[in-house]
Amino acid sequence: MANQAIVRHARKEDCPLILQLIQELADYEKESAANQATVPTLEATIAFAPSDATGPKTSITPNTEPTSSTKPARCLLLFTPEGEPAGMALYFYNYSTWRAKPGIYLEDLFVRETMRGRGYGKRLLVELAKETVGMDGGRLDWVVLKWNEPSIKFYESIGAKAMSEWVGMRVDNEGLQKLAKLLD
Amino acid sequence: MANQAIVRHARKEDCPLILQLIQELADYEKESAANQATVPTLEATIAFAPSDATGPKTSITPNTEPTSSTKPARCLLLFTPEGEPAGMALYFYNYSTWRAKPGIYLEDLFVRETMRGRGYGKRLLVELAKETVGMDGGRLDWVVLKWNEPSIKFYESIGAKAMSEWVGMRVDNEGLQKLAKLLD
Repeated sequence: MANQAIVRHARKEDCPLILQLIQELADYEKESAANQATVPTLEATIAFAPSDATGPKTSITPNTEPTSSTKPARCLLLFTPEGEPAGMALYFYNYSTWRAKPGIYLEDLFVRETMRGRGYGKRLLVELAKETVGMDGGRLDWVVLKWNEPSIKFYESIGAKAMSEWVGMRVDNEGLQKLAKLLD
Repeated sequence: MANQAIVRHARKEDCPLILQLIQELADYEKESAANQATVPTLEATIAFAPSDATGPKTSITPNTEPTSSTKPARCLLLFTPEGEPAGMALYFYNYSTWRAKPGIYLEDLFVRETMRGRGYGKRLLVELAKETVGMDGGRLDWVVLKWNEPSIKFYESIGAKAMSEWVGMRVDNEGLQKLAKLLD
């Protein structure tokens, strides 16, 4: 079934749909208020496929605007064979120093609650693996909440390994402003 | 002292130096053989400042080739006030969906062993925070090995928080090839 789903890069006019999916993801994670994205801010920060793009696009030859430091994200949308929006994968390009190779970092993977159990999440991951291989990339990375064991088991079943020896560090909000001025 | 250090974006002709620093980092992590980078592969995958760039460049207005999916990395080099190479920060651009904002992901931060204790690591982090703020970015992210508690304490002292509730997932090597063909 997942093979019949249509996967293509998002176009600018898909932003209301993308925002809807982001909000559904925030609701699912019980973080409804955390979503600050809007249609204009999404429009400004995602590299889109042209509006006249027709039919499904493979992610191996992404047909979007170039990514840049201020527009680093690409977005794959997945539709049912009947054309109903079912999920998305929002990603950007990472880098492995020791391989001196680019790769893909999956920031958000989401399949709508009523559309689960059809292999759509796997399909989106396969598309990203294809793009990574197609660009001679080194790795496909993402993070998952530790309590989400069913997801971790699923990811491991398709070949991912948990990077349990590492912990992420983040500076944001006021901390970021302060750090930028720390040596002034 | 860290304020007098010179920080600038790497130029193409810096690749032998970058490779040397990467190898010193691999040696320090007791992973000497893991480094597969070469001067040509670094040249092909890093967005460089022009060779005729003179003097220190601030990272707020990065003066390099555009980044792209196959050349996603930028590299800051730090030199002592006497001009001796002391460290580097290799990074790329990430994305926060809920903020609909780009940001910076620090892939590798390295200060040579004999150059430590002078605030150079902090200086490089401050430069990246400045660039993140300058681009109206949402966050500055990186990962650290969990056993490296002195580093974690240092990062927390400059405003970073540990993302302890998340675990990284990775697909690479044969796993990546297999995943790309999983639905064929």
